[in-house]
Amino acid sequence: MSDPVRVGLIGCGYWGPNLARNLHQIPEAELVACCDLDPQALDRMRMLYPHVITTSDQNDLWGDAGIEAVVIATPARTHYALARAALEADKHVLVEKPLAMSSQEAQALIALAEERQRVLMVGHIFEYHPAVRKIKALMDAGELGQVYYIYSTRVNLGRVQSDVNALWSIAPHDISILIYLLGEMPLSVAAHGGTFLNGVIEDVVFLVLRFPGHVLGHVHVSWLDPSKVRRMTVVGSRRMVVYDDVADEGKIKVYDKGVYRKGEDIYGEFQYRVHSGDIAIPRLDMTEPLRIECTHFAECVRQGRRPQTDGLNGLRVVRVLEAAQASLEQGGVDVSLARG
Amino acid sequence: MSDPVRVGLIGCGYWGPNLARNLHQIPEAELVACCDLDPQALDRMRMLYPHVITTSDQNDLWGDAGIEAVVIATPARTHYALARAALEADKHVLVEKPLAMSSQEAQALIALAEERQRVLMVGHIFEYHPAVRKIKALMDAGELGQVYYIYSTRVNLGRVQSDVNALWSIAPHDISILIYLLGEMPLSVAAHGGTFLNGVIEDVVFLVLRFPGHVLGHVHVSWLDPSKVRRMTVVGSRRMVVYDDVADEGKIKVYDKGVYRKGEDIYGEFQYRVHSGDIAIPRLDMTEPLRIECTHFAECVRQGRRPQTDGLNGLRVVRVLEAAQASLEQGGVDVSLARG
Amino acid sequence: MSDPVRVGLIGCGYWGPNLARNLHQIPEAELVACCDLDPQALDRMRMLYPHVITTSDQNDLWGDAGIEAVVIATPARTHYALARAALEADKHVLVEKPLAMSSQEAQALIALAEERQRVLMVGHIFEYHPAVRKIKALMDAGELGQVYYIYSTRVNLGRVQSDVNALWSIAPHDISILIYLLGEMPLSVAAHGGTFLNGVIEDVVFLVLRFPGHVLGHVHVSWLDPSKVRRMTVVGSRRMVVYDDVADEGKIKVYDKGVYRKGEDIYGEFQYRVHSGDIAIPRLDMTEPLRIECTHFAECVRQGRRPQTDGLNGLRVVRVLEAAQASLEQGGVDVSLARG
Amino acid sequence: MSDPVRVGLIGCGYWGPNLARNLHQIPEAELVACCDLDPQALDRMRMLYPHVITTSDQNDLWGDAGIEAVVIATPARTHYALARAALEADKHVLVEKPLAMSSQEAQALIALAEERQRVLMVGHIFEYHPAVRKIKALMDAGELGQVYYIYSTRVNLGRVQSDVNALWSIAPHDISILIYLLGEMPLSVAAHGGTFLNGVIEDVVFLVLRFPGHVLGHVHVSWLDPSKVRRMTVVGSRRMVVYDDVADEGKIKVYDKGVYRKGEDIYGEFQYRVHSGDIAIPRLDMTEPLRIECTHFAECVRQGRRPQTDGLNGLRVVRVLEAAQASLEQGGVDVSLARG
Repeated sequence: MSDPVRVGLIGCGYWGPNLARNLHQIPEAELVACCDLDPQALDRMRMLYPHVITTSDQNDLWGDAGIEAVVIATPARTHYALARAALEADKHVLVEKPLAMSSQEAQALIALAEERQRVLMVGHIFEYHPAVRKIKALMDAGELGQVYYIYSTRVNLGRVQSDVNALWSIAPHDISILIYLLGEMPLSVAAHGGTFLNGVIEDVVFLVLRFPGHVLGHVHVSWLDPSKVRRMTVVGSRRMVVYDDVADEGKIKVYDKGVYRKGEDIYGEFQYRVHSGDIAIPRLDMTEPLRIECTHFAECVRQGRRPQTDGLNGLRVVRVLEAAQASLEQGGVDVSLARG
Repeated sequence: MSDPVRVGLIGCGYWGPNLARNLHQIPEAELVACCDLDPQALDRMRMLYPHVITTSDQNDLWGDAGIEAVVIATPARTHYALARAALEADKHVLVEKPLAMSSQEAQALIALAEERQRVLMVGHIFEYHPAVRKIKALMDAGELGQVYYIYSTRVNLGRVQSDVNALWSIAPHDISILIYLLGEMPLSVAAHGGTFLNGVIEDVVFLVLRFPGHVLGHVHVSWLDPSKVRRMTVVGSRRMVVYDDVADEGKIKVYDKGVYRKGEDIYGEFQYRVHSGDIAIPRLDMTEPLRIECTHFAECVRQGRRPQTDGLNGLRVVRVLEAAQASLEQGGVDVSLARG
Repeated sequence: MSDPVRVGLIGCGYWGPNLARNLHQIPEAELVACCDLDPQALDRMRMLYPHVITTSDQNDLWGDAGIEAVVIATPARTHYALARAALEADKHVLVEKPLAMSSQEAQALIALAEERQRVLMVGHIFEYHPAVRKIKALMDAGELGQVYYIYSTRVNLGRVQSDVNALWSIAPHDISILIYLLGEMPLSVAAHGGTFLNGVIEDVVFLVLRFPGHVLGHVHVSWLDPSKVRRMTVVGSRRMVVYDDVADEGKIKVYDKGVYRKGEDIYGEFQYRVHSGDIAIPRLDMTEPLRIECTHFAECVRQGRRPQTDGLNGLRVVRVLEAAQASLEQGGVDVSLARG
Repeated sequence: MSDPVRVGLIGCGYWGPNLARNLHQIPEAELVACCDLDPQALDRMRMLYPHVITTSDQNDLWGDAGIEAVVIATPARTHYALARAALEADKHVLVEKPLAMSSQEAQALIALAEERQRVLMVGHIFEYHPAVRKIKALMDAGELGQVYYIYSTRVNLGRVQSDVNALWSIAPHDISILIYLLGEMPLSVAAHGGTFLNGVIEDVVFLVLRFPGHVLGHVHVSWLDPSKVRRMTVVGSRRMVVYDDVADEGKIKVYDKGVYRKGEDIYGEFQYRVHSGDIAIPRLDMTEPLRIECTHFAECVRQGRRPQTDGLNGLRVVRVLEAAQASLEQGGVDVSLARG
């Protein structure tokens, strides 16, 4: 096996420690440095990983030739500047979602990574989740028939953000899953939200996404909910799938259910027959998705490959977020994503 | 006790038999006649209630002086004409939801009931549901603090309609609950849907309702879903309630949870503190809501009282449906419900 | 189709009304008479089935030539005398579980039914339950491999009996299912219980049943439990089944799970490998088991067939109950069921 | 704060890494050495804690004056010899459950710890679990009324042992909880088991425990079950508690339920009334119980205090296990625990 990729982590607050743990554990990478503005966060890292360099100055990472790649897990609004600086210092970059706060910024990062010949990857973790990949495999194999609509609920209490709203904070997950599963961009998006806690930032957002072929997507995100729910339902003409990420047993249930037209009644109206068969709960690989993601990043760096969730993938999600934000600001109007 | 109200039932298909059973069982009413166009439906009624008159001609009911009241459980598009005929025959009327297919029709029924001095009631059953009444009591007592938003999911597989879409078929429940709980009409509604089965009728509809005081309502209805879900979440500033109508134990969970502002951080941004306390599952009266509804109707007839879900109550729901339908037809634009 | 069997029901208290409803609804039977000592119970029956004869005197049934069969749903201690009287009056008999309070009584009923050429059936309803039948089919097809053990929990709050203990009141269900699934009698039984409410009658009983081939059965019954649980687990060498009768969706889950020997370790001790594959939730016939049971009874009467749960079947369960009762009274010793 | 206790860990296989992680994280302790016979286990420890001494020779720990205390997480049959050696080397000892394989061994350890003035603690983790402590507090406050019986199910697939059976491997948890909650030893125990995988070692064990005051305990343990279940039910005369350790939300549910005598019926038999009120889900401290346990050990070492789960506590559990093993070997007879 080739040498582990030497990685510096920027941002050791909420999500960063999970990245650190995985980077520390996988043989493909080696966590060599941690950077955070909060000295307590660095203390915690030092206690867990005493051999790791800690610093509150990002420049220490840029100048360290021993660091090949950086992983950025900082507040969303800082992603662009940090990723830019990292690429300019010729580091490979894995940046948490969202890739950036505008498509312009995302495109700039893509161009820069291209120019510097560096890996640019965004942490759309659910594309590495065995459950999501299983659903994708079922869809690609035609098991679900024609996909009618997909809806997703991702709510919880807590992690209230004050720099970005629930759309930018939570919905990147659902948007990236939808684009991944359907294999294409939505044509348009409408967004409705509520700004309850401080009157400015949306705590709750509902998205309606229109995909080609009349496929409908719906997303509900919130950080103001009594229960932790992470559930997605894919309704196809032949089978339906419920993916409950919080379930212990049976994260994915495949329902052999469908509604079929059986003719017309005496008034000339269509009659339907409901078919309701077995339910299957496929066994899933239990590897932690973040471990798969980190390994993939390290392999792409080492082998010069383009990651599954590359800059373009990140840009697509940012474009949808941007359009959804515009819809939010215009009271829920449908915003087109068709390219001009 | 006064004499039982002698009731004729029109429509013995899907929901009608439940009405028949309750009308048969409560001492306040007596089921004396059943009317349906389908002879098999009448056969079933005769087998269960051999003493009951059965007929396929509604005129038999209008002319029968022994029938004081009729209950109408027919397809939605027939409600108006049947209720009108019943009132013109001086019968008291309980009509299933929706009261009518337009606010104009609903207003005409209200006027006619007024003129004929008859009870006009609509079967918004959830206003008689002990769970919904309990939530209302908690809200009225200030237990939830300020209500931020309420969202509802009412989906299932089956009962595909060919005369009305999922909005008119299912959403009247959610709309009537929202208006009941919040005690006022929404200011506007936006609706998004998908017409998967036949390309014309919406199988799935999402509603966004804006109430006074920045309260947000969201409704998801569908007859194209793998699982039966009937869940409503009320998010307040002090407590949150989840009402799961499908749960065996604990249909209502009251979460002592809230998010409180705890000051500003060093960047001047608001910081929030999540409070997460006990969960309470209040005991509920286990009486079947339909029994409560039927008893209420009979008592209103006998005592000349105005029912909780009177014609005006039915009109309010129809007005929201009408606006939502207009929004659906205009691609999801916000339709105002403010009176001209 | 042949004429419906004319049936009289004795016992209209707790379970009787369910029998009445099914006997009323199936075309194979006709409910013609109801008998109970409680006038209010008869009032309720008359209200639901105005055409039915009601009486508080069982002799009215014995002497009525229009009654071909009786269904007995009275307290357990009265089963024997009533079934005996019914058979002596040449009625076919369906008696609720347990068939009798001793194997001697059960044998006497079998002999009498033989002599009078009448159908004698016991209401071991779970043998007519599609879920139990599905498990039986999986076992018979070898899908589970070698069956190791089966355990069952059937607890609830309420239905506290003062004539019989939880063993005789609840455990007949579990015992009949175990004998049905395994196709043989246990070799021995040990029973442990607690008499909490009145110091004499067991409210809670645990049974340990030893079947041929080292198969182990365990049963936990109680009427003193906070939750309604009706769950049975069948552990086989190749697959395992959980049957949760209270579940809305997926009463039966078939786990592709097993433990396999993979050799010995360096100390000569066996090493095991756990296999954990997919879970399947087979679709089940949704017919009410009591309806299947009632139909089966009527068909056996009309066609002169021996029912699946005939007198001998009832005797087997009584013999296990008898042995378990003896164990209870001797502090839990193992009581053999081998024939002397 | 005083200096952290310098700890050596023996046994880095299944449970050891959890101990290592907690010992590493709490400020009250410092993990300084790891010992295991398996070089791969040591490799993993070294990777996670590069500063820690690793060795396959326990003598390296005994002779190291820098090690004040050892934590023993090895197979059960080795506990006694290792704990003995540690105490003889004047180390404080935390040994995983069971403390030893016989009461004689346990007593010898207690005497030795006394003699050497060292802390001897056993890892009965559930006595440190906030859920169990909450139940204890409810019981002590009389909230449950008179406790009738407690039953526990602790089953899973896997962790098949070849040195000890499911009784010694799993049931120590349940036995320690029962003794802790009820505050006294059982009077007797009966045990029934099944040896399915290799014909010698019990994979499944059922225990019946009789406590003073007619309180009944029942325990079901197994490593041969399709689902992970860890549930305990406490039935009291006034309230009942279900503790589901696998539940995400609401590990403890307190049911305001009870059965009350309401007099006698016309036959002189007792009549009962079921009371069924609210359910409460109290908020629990979310600290990992193992962290509480490790902190308690370190504090006892530093402050010279006797731990809650001291040697005597460990002995009590071993005495019950011993009696249960005797019962198993005698086919389930009741084995008395009264002192001679």
